Amino acid sequence: MKKNAIYAQSGGVTAVINASAAGVIEACREYSEQIGILYAAENGILGVLHEELIDTSIETCENIKKLKSTPGGAFGSCRYKLKSLTDNRKEYERLIEVFKAYDVGYFFYNGGNDSADTCLKVSQIANELGYPLKAIHVPKTIDNDLVKTDNCPGFGSVAKYVATSIREAGMDLESMCKTSTKVFILEVMGRHAGWIAAACGVASDENSFQAPHIILFPEIPFDETAFIAKVKQTVEQYGYCVIAVSEGVKDSSGVELSASQSTVDDFGHRQLGGVAPIVAQIVKKHLGYKYHWAVADYLQRSARHIASSVDVEQAYAVGYAGVKYAVEDNLHGVMSAIIRTSQNPYKWEIQPVKLEEVANHEKFMPRNFISEDGFHITDVCREYLLPLMVGENYPEYKNGLPDYVRLENKLVAKKLPPFVK
Amino acid sequence: MKKNAIYAQSGGVTAVINASAAGVIEACREYSEQIGILYAAENGILGVLHEELIDTSIETCENIKKLKSTPGGAFGSCRYKLKSLTDNRKEYERLIEVFKAYDVGYFFYNGGNDSADTCLKVSQIANELGYPLKAIHVPKTIDNDLVKTDNCPGFGSVAKYVATSIREAGMDLESMCKTSTKVFILEVMGRHAGWIAAACGVASDENSFQAPHIILFPEIPFDETAFIAKVKQTVEQYGYCVIAVSEGVKDSSGVELSASQSTVDDFGHRQLGGVAPIVAQIVKKHLGYKYHWAVADYLQRSARHIASSVDVEQAYAVGYAGVKYAVEDNLHGVMSAIIRTSQNPYKWEIQPVKLEEVANHEKFMPRNFISEDGFHITDVCREYLLPLMVGENYPEYKNGLPDYVRLENKLVAKKLPPFVK
Repeated sequence: MKKNAIYAQSGGVTAVINASAAGVIEACREYSEQIGILYAAENGILGVLHEELIDTSIETCENIKKLKSTPGGAFGSCRYKLKSLTDNRKEYERLIEVFKAYDVGYFFYNGGNDSADTCLKVSQIANELGYPLKAIHVPKTIDNDLVKTDNCPGFGSVAKYVATSIREAGMDLESMCKTSTKVFILEVMGRHAGWIAAACGVASDENSFQAPHIILFPEIPFDETAFIAKVKQTVEQYGYCVIAVSEGVKDSSGVELSASQSTVDDFGHRQLGGVAPIVAQIVKKHLGYKYHWAVADYLQRSARHIASSVDVEQAYAVGYAGVKYAVEDNLHGVMSAIIRTSQNPYKWEIQPVKLEEVANHEKFMPRNFISEDGFHITDVCREYLLPLMVGENYPEYKNGLPDYVRLENKLVAKKLPPFVK
Repeated sequence: MKKNAIYAQSGGVTAVINASAAGVIEACREYSEQIGILYAAENGILGVLHEELIDTSIETCENIKKLKSTPGGAFGSCRYKLKSLTDNRKEYERLIEVFKAYDVGYFFYNGGNDSADTCLKVSQIANELGYPLKAIHVPKTIDNDLVKTDNCPGFGSVAKYVATSIREAGMDLESMCKTSTKVFILEVMGRHAGWIAAACGVASDENSFQAPHIILFPEIPFDETAFIAKVKQTVEQYGYCVIAVSEGVKDSSGVELSASQSTVDDFGHRQLGGVAPIVAQIVKKHLGYKYHWAVADYLQRSARHIASSVDVEQAYAVGYAGVKYAVEDNLHGVMSAIIRTSQNPYKWEIQPVKLEEVANHEKFMPRNFISEDGFHITDVCREYLLPLMVGENYPEYKNGLPDYVRLENKLVAKKLPPFVK
């Protein structure tokens, strides 16, 4: 029996989340005997709650194809965490009410940890209420911290971006260090897990003189004395020192450096964000070296211009497979996971994993991925990371700038009374 | 009569300064009847003073070709300004002494404003001392502030990088703004002239809803009240606001915002650099919006992975032409300038201009390039900027990362006693 479907994007977007959207949309179009209209929720789960639904069927095939090379979230995403079923049953029931009103039998939820949990709960309440729904989680997060999947779509492209950027900045620094800046610090994302910081490390060999020379992970408590000694030694040996720092790096008492050592501005406000300038001040205070720092922030997670081909392919594949699992394999409450089936040559495939095994878990850097002194990555880490960055998948350009697509995003007329919390 | 040559890189490097180096090297190799050995000075003019000279003739043609797509300064650069002839005659005489020792008849100096001045002085003292030298300035600066050239090699690639980055970050923000960050600020380089900030503006049409919505130029005194009103209006109209800010933006008394409103850290040090967090705090204080900020810093001037084809071609051409001017046209004390011979279609050629007309001048944004309210660029500015960003000139990749070349950089044995200042 033909049913409609809803697709929603959740949490921080990535350079390739729209490739997953394209995978879902193209698969739904191929399964046109089983799936009627695919709606996309505007601004993620909020669009379902408030019945703000986009009819994706009016989008041209050409534009859906261009989605594969467009960053951001094409339908809007949101940071909105549904509470537990007991605390907030009304919201879950509203979701089911909207599903009913639109004859929705498939729910594809594209997000990270929190979304996996939400997707699981939606699946559970549908079961409980006897509503026939196949809820599938399509993974996405630059943080690379989902379990049961070898890696997360979005991460490979950030990894390629930060490794490329720090290599380039390192070459800049190297050529100027005789008379100018001696220390350069690049701050990258990763509040809890150091995967992105680790990716910077791929730009250098373990014993190489190339940037980065030091990586500061959130998993390794910041040891100021050891850090200063390492910076000094590096500058004395190579003439300069390039440092990658994760935004979430913490001191020995577990407090983030950006909080514990943050500055207070003229208005008495705490300066939010920016661990790079704090690390720079530590270097300046103890060693006096001239420094520069950069904070990549959103640039890193939206840098579709230097996306990894492997990442784009996997992002598409997890979306496509999610639809297949629901339609062909009669699965629900699962996530499309990426499985590494071979290391050399790198091979991967998509397999379904139960959401119970994914939700509310977080994958940190294993200790053996970090060098003994805590300041770099090991070869085993490098072997894990490198294949994820391989291949260039360039967007089209027009007049010198990437020609990203903007969809019609036409909302359908509402059928229900407004949702009041 | 065959003479040797010296090439030196000066000041902040760019993503394409090595393309100029390749132009000089390949031209010297073609003029092998007139030019013997081409030495590259290690770390710029310091390498000439201290007789640290690299024999470029041992570098393979393949590696010289790869220089065209390698960022940083392949031979090292420096921030070292020679004083005036009267204040520091000894240094200039030392340069001539080194030229004599190596039978150097050609000096190619690759830099910005200060270097143009140095190159002119070297040319003058050679004349004065009756030493036959052809000193040619090869322009380079991401700041785009040299006069008598339509634009400066290095700028087009930064322009492409910042415009692409702010477009991508804008799409990220747009998709999240309903429940998350409302204001994003990207800090770009440009201490005195707002060319790089202006380049961000190419990512949006003048009346477009796309990022960036606001640009803060060093040429326009920062008007906090007008700025806050503009941010508020933009967020109310579009749901979010993307701001490009030049590091050199100043208040109405001409003091840089990053100095006048800078914060003081726990150690009592002034927080150096980073106008983006200061602008963010102003937004937070007056409007309360959630913000994010990024500081591109060295990433922008080393981002060879997204260089502009036009920029790469021009960088090569100014290097190549410099050699031709000296050898074929018997010119000295000139700079290879880029002349825009046609706007539509964009056409350019290289012409020599006298260094007297270039040195110690600085080109700012004309007022008619900036919109009336001072917060964006005009169409005439867009027409100027756009052709400079056109075309993609990708480096080769190996294992997912750009495969940049590292030259042999073999120093020749010294012939002179050490230079003592």
